[in-house]
Amino acid sequence: MYIYGKNVAVEKLKSNEKINKIYISNHFSDKEVFDLIKKRNIRYSVVPKNVIDKKAPGLNQGIVLDVDDVETKEFDFIKTIDKKNPIIVMLDHLEDPHNFGAIIRTCEALGIDGIIIPNDRNVGVNSTVVKTSAGAIYNMPIIRVANLLTTTNKLKDMGYWIIGTDMDGEDYTKIDYNMPICLIIGNEGSGISKVIRDNCDFIAKIPMAGTINSLNASVSCGIVLSRIVTSDR
Amino acid sequence: MYIYGKNVAVEKLKSNEKINKIYISNHFSDKEVFDLIKKRNIRYSVVPKNVIDKKAPGLNQGIVLDVDDVETKEFDFIKTIDKKNPIIVMLDHLEDPHNFGAIIRTCEALGIDGIIIPNDRNVGVNSTVVKTSAGAIYNMPIIRVANLLTTTNKLKDMGYWIIGTDMDGEDYTKIDYNMPICLIIGNEGSGISKVIRDNCDFIAKIPMAGTINSLNASVSCGIVLSRIVTSDR
Repeated sequence: MYIYGKNVAVEKLKSNEKINKIYISNHFSDKEVFDLIKKRNIRYSVVPKNVIDKKAPGLNQGIVLDVDDVETKEFDFIKTIDKKNPIIVMLDHLEDPHNFGAIIRTCEALGIDGIIIPNDRNVGVNSTVVKTSAGAIYNMPIIRVANLLTTTNKLKDMGYWIIGTDMDGEDYTKIDYNMPICLIIGNEGSGISKVIRDNCDFIAKIPMAGTINSLNASVSCGIVLSRIVTSDR
Repeated sequence: MYIYGKNVAVEKLKSNEKINKIYISNHFSDKEVFDLIKKRNIRYSVVPKNVIDKKAPGLNQGIVLDVDDVETKEFDFIKTIDKKNPIIVMLDHLEDPHNFGAIIRTCEALGIDGIIIPNDRNVGVNSTVVKTSAGAIYNMPIIRVANLLTTTNKLKDMGYWIIGTDMDGEDYTKIDYNMPICLIIGNEGSGISKVIRDNCDFIAKIPMAGTINSLNASVSCGIVLSRIVTSDR
């Protein structure tokens, strides 16, 4: 997989994970990146800008890395989290890679313990996701599961409370978050699946003052998560 | 300007604002949209999908509207806001239309009173912004100004407190928001301009637990705004 952009390159270089090859445009001059490349002694090729643009269409900022696909975790990873009240985010069939990337970035910044995604019908971990995450994906466990409903039940057995986000529910500022939490973010168009919604312990609602009545998925996720991490818990 | 997508179409049709023409793909079948078109008695053309795709590359959902450019307001609009503690958002040279659109959507949903953008070096109100805003732009005043620094001074004279967002500042959960507020969101790469930052009354910081140390601009905006609107004020 090709990943690109300065922030992504810095995080990947710092992570000590394997990098197969680096392509740098002849206009690229970021000192931090060159120092990290030197430190890790990775070979790189200086190539014309159009070669970079072909490998990574978009805002590549003149640097592309050829790396192995992002490693995801199994469900059992969650059993290894050693904390009083862990917070897990579950994405219920998210479609937009920009939303997925922004959610990874938010989760990493707020100290969330992992993100669960379903194997099917969810945007995968592609280059756009890596770029939008600003490299945060290399510090955030992504847990792939076959079935979200089964997973919520397994989490309940482990003591987690399942909190959905929706337009109908309790005011998110009034919920007691002093417990292990799995927060579910629904699909951009259709929200949380009915079977999953019915299995939630709480539905957190962000009260809306306007006429649109819905927020971007990554913004909703940020608003509720920031409330959870700053509450007494 | 061509605008596109179902949500955008619904909001524009409901707004009673002028629509020059509507193009609909022969696969499009949304009842709400057809009812609204009928109600407003606007002419539309049913055309092949490739005609739609040419007018609006991207997720157009089979509907494109030919409309006049989005009308923006002058600074004096702010003087007409009749509220105890209005909230204005100022965008300090934002670049990404997806961020701008998501911020408009967030502001509309949370009941914010207006968004100030500079005339130059800020993403303008283009089709991507309209689409990402999910139509919220038609309910959110966008105020264009020539100079952000002068504008912050005029706002101060009117009793507003200027709050910047940055990595160095006060914990955003500890600030007293019981006052008229102008919240400033900085550029995606470089943050808030130095002259503007120096003119802020407070800098709100979202504490970070991870290694990335920054959030997507629209997510930061949502986190701080949601805290402001739910505080005692």
